Amino acid sequence: MVVTKVNLEEKLGKFSEHWTPKIVGELNGQHVKVVKLKGSFVWHQHEKEDEFFLVLKGTLKIHLKERSVTLSEGEFIIIPRGTEHMPEAEEEVQVMLFEPASTVNTGETESSLKVENPEWI
Amino acid sequence: MVVTKVNLEEKLGKFSEHWTPKIVGELNGQHVKVVKLKGSFVWHQHEKEDEFFLVLKGTLKIHLKERSVTLSEGEFIIIPRGTEHMPEAEEEVQVMLFEPASTVNTGETESSLKVENPEWI
Repeated sequence: MVVTKVNLEEKLGKFSEHWTPKIVGELNGQHVKVVKLKGSFVWHQHEKEDEFFLVLKGTLKIHLKERSVTLSEGEFIIIPRGTEHMPEAEEEVQVMLFEPASTVNTGETESSLKVENPEWI
Repeated sequence: MVVTKVNLEEKLGKFSEHWTPKIVGELNGQHVKVVKLKGSFVWHQHEKEDEFFLVLKGTLKIHLKERSVTLSEGEFIIIPRGTEHMPEAEEEVQVMLFEPASTVNTGETESSLKVENPEWI
């Protein structure tokens, strides 16, 4: 296995679609992903996976049941397993995710936005 | 458990010492850490843990046995378990780490730089 560096901006330049996480690294059974978000996602939760969102560019709102959290560039949030959440972005936001390789973007919710097997880029 | 966001710059403003990783988040048995590096570390490897380095500010050189990789802001590298490596930074570099909670910074190497129980900040 060749150890190489990954440039996040370069990876984010490879696609333009929203709500479609791409895998850019794997370690300890976890995936590192990048994704572009714009608009509203679906309310969902992950039964067995905690999920990490780091904003690389733009502003991301994460709605929780009782309140919302707004994240700017250089801010992250960890959504614990079993916590209902709904990401929303008025303008396009670029995000890095850490989550177990088993994680499906829509969690337990059935949705056309589901990405079963994210692509490696 | 209250779900709150973390601002990386704010966390990095809380300490100034080098080679002392601080924990800023936990998910799926993994820790998210921030660290400031300057100078040369010790050659080491982790037997059971893959390690993720993301440069937030500055330039980081990771020496591997056969070559070196230089990382700038917005670039990451994953060092697979069992891979000898030695981080080096001519000027201070700010880094985010993602690794299993069990990871010790100096791996299998005995060194005065060892941090047994990193502090949460």
